[in-house]
Amino acid sequence: MTDTNLSLDARLGPFTVEGMALADQIFDLVGSAIVDGVLEPGEKVNDKEVAAALGISRTPVREALQRLTWVGLVEVSPSRYTRVTQVTDDDVLSTLEHIGMQASTALQFAMRRMSADELVEAVSFLDRMIAASRADDSDALMAESQAFIGFLVAKSGNPVFIRMMSETNLLVARNLRHVRQQEGSAAMRAECFEEMRNAMLLGDADAAERWFRTQHGVGVDTAL
Amino acid sequence: MTDTNLSLDARLGPFTVEGMALADQIFDLVGSAIVDGVLEPGEKVNDKEVAAALGISRTPVREALQRLTWVGLVEVSPSRYTRVTQVTDDDVLSTLEHIGMQASTALQFAMRRMSADELVEAVSFLDRMIAASRADDSDALMAESQAFIGFLVAKSGNPVFIRMMSETNLLVARNLRHVRQQEGSAAMRAECFEEMRNAMLLGDADAAERWFRTQHGVGVDTAL
Repeated sequence: MTDTNLSLDARLGPFTVEGMALADQIFDLVGSAIVDGVLEPGEKVNDKEVAAALGISRTPVREALQRLTWVGLVEVSPSRYTRVTQVTDDDVLSTLEHIGMQASTALQFAMRRMSADELVEAVSFLDRMIAASRADDSDALMAESQAFIGFLVAKSGNPVFIRMMSETNLLVARNLRHVRQQEGSAAMRAECFEEMRNAMLLGDADAAERWFRTQHGVGVDTAL
Repeated sequence: MTDTNLSLDARLGPFTVEGMALADQIFDLVGSAIVDGVLEPGEKVNDKEVAAALGISRTPVREALQRLTWVGLVEVSPSRYTRVTQVTDDDVLSTLEHIGMQASTALQFAMRRMSADELVEAVSFLDRMIAASRADDSDALMAESQAFIGFLVAKSGNPVFIRMMSETNLLVARNLRHVRQQEGSAAMRAECFEEMRNAMLLGDADAAERWFRTQHGVGVDTAL
């Protein structure tokens, strides 16, 4: 929980102007604040207040808030104020299902294009995921899983897919903020990762994808 | 090819203000103009000119152009003018690969959630695709294929997936504007559609997905 008594500029933190359009910087700044829970679900975000807190004009703030609306992190209420969207249990389930399928798509694409060195690097993510899973370190497991998926997307070699994934990146990260793998399934999780690792090293993209989906409980009839 | 001698407002066409934010309307208007080729790849889009042509202020036009930049339909050049992006052969291949995988994902999701009536409706798209394929009517085939994918996405029941697909909708439509199925593969195409149809009616999502991927030449080792 964040101390909401802190001033808005203290909660948003510093930003630099160099190299990047101001609206893009504000998008990242406010987006990260929402993902990290510094701005909480349901909290109002006023463009005038944000602009005053950061000592800038309202225009780039307005543009950033609009983009955050399109991305799904903020919404304009019927009475016309802007606030951080809520995350329901259904949102969490939809996001998990979605990212499971997209991760397996990223794996399919990446496996057809990765060099031998990149394949070794990809497998090293799985090694760390297996270690975290065995140690029951759910924070490390979540962080390594997200890094693994990010690596696969980057190596997918498909710019349209990469663009699309980057557009939903923040929404996915925010929706899964409080999600941790269930404790009870540690053994099955480790087995999925091991099998995925084997399939990847054998160059069997279809099998690797199937284990990915099994691990996420999507796209196969097998229950997790 | 569009008559670029026509005035900008004549080329963009009318728009209505009711119900929808002005920036969203301009986004749709200019986005459609790019998708339809009314505004051509490489053509400059000046916010001042668009605003003057439509008789509105520059702010909503600027916002719409920004969103089109994020979506990938326009780009800001180093010398700071905005223009419609080019579509390379690689862009077309990436888009086909991307939409093939996303269509099979939509099918997986939809098959687990469609009612019996909706399944019949989904299959009727395939019937029309088979007919268009047999008649070698590539325009009808393309239109029915896109409508089929749109139907599956709408029935996917996953709001995060639906949001992501709608964000890349325009980019995909624009990149595939000149794409038609290759004439030589009509028989194999029809076979894929038939097999997909059978798998769907049998409730076998994995098999249906596999045929979808085969038809798009992605995610399976079989060459199309």
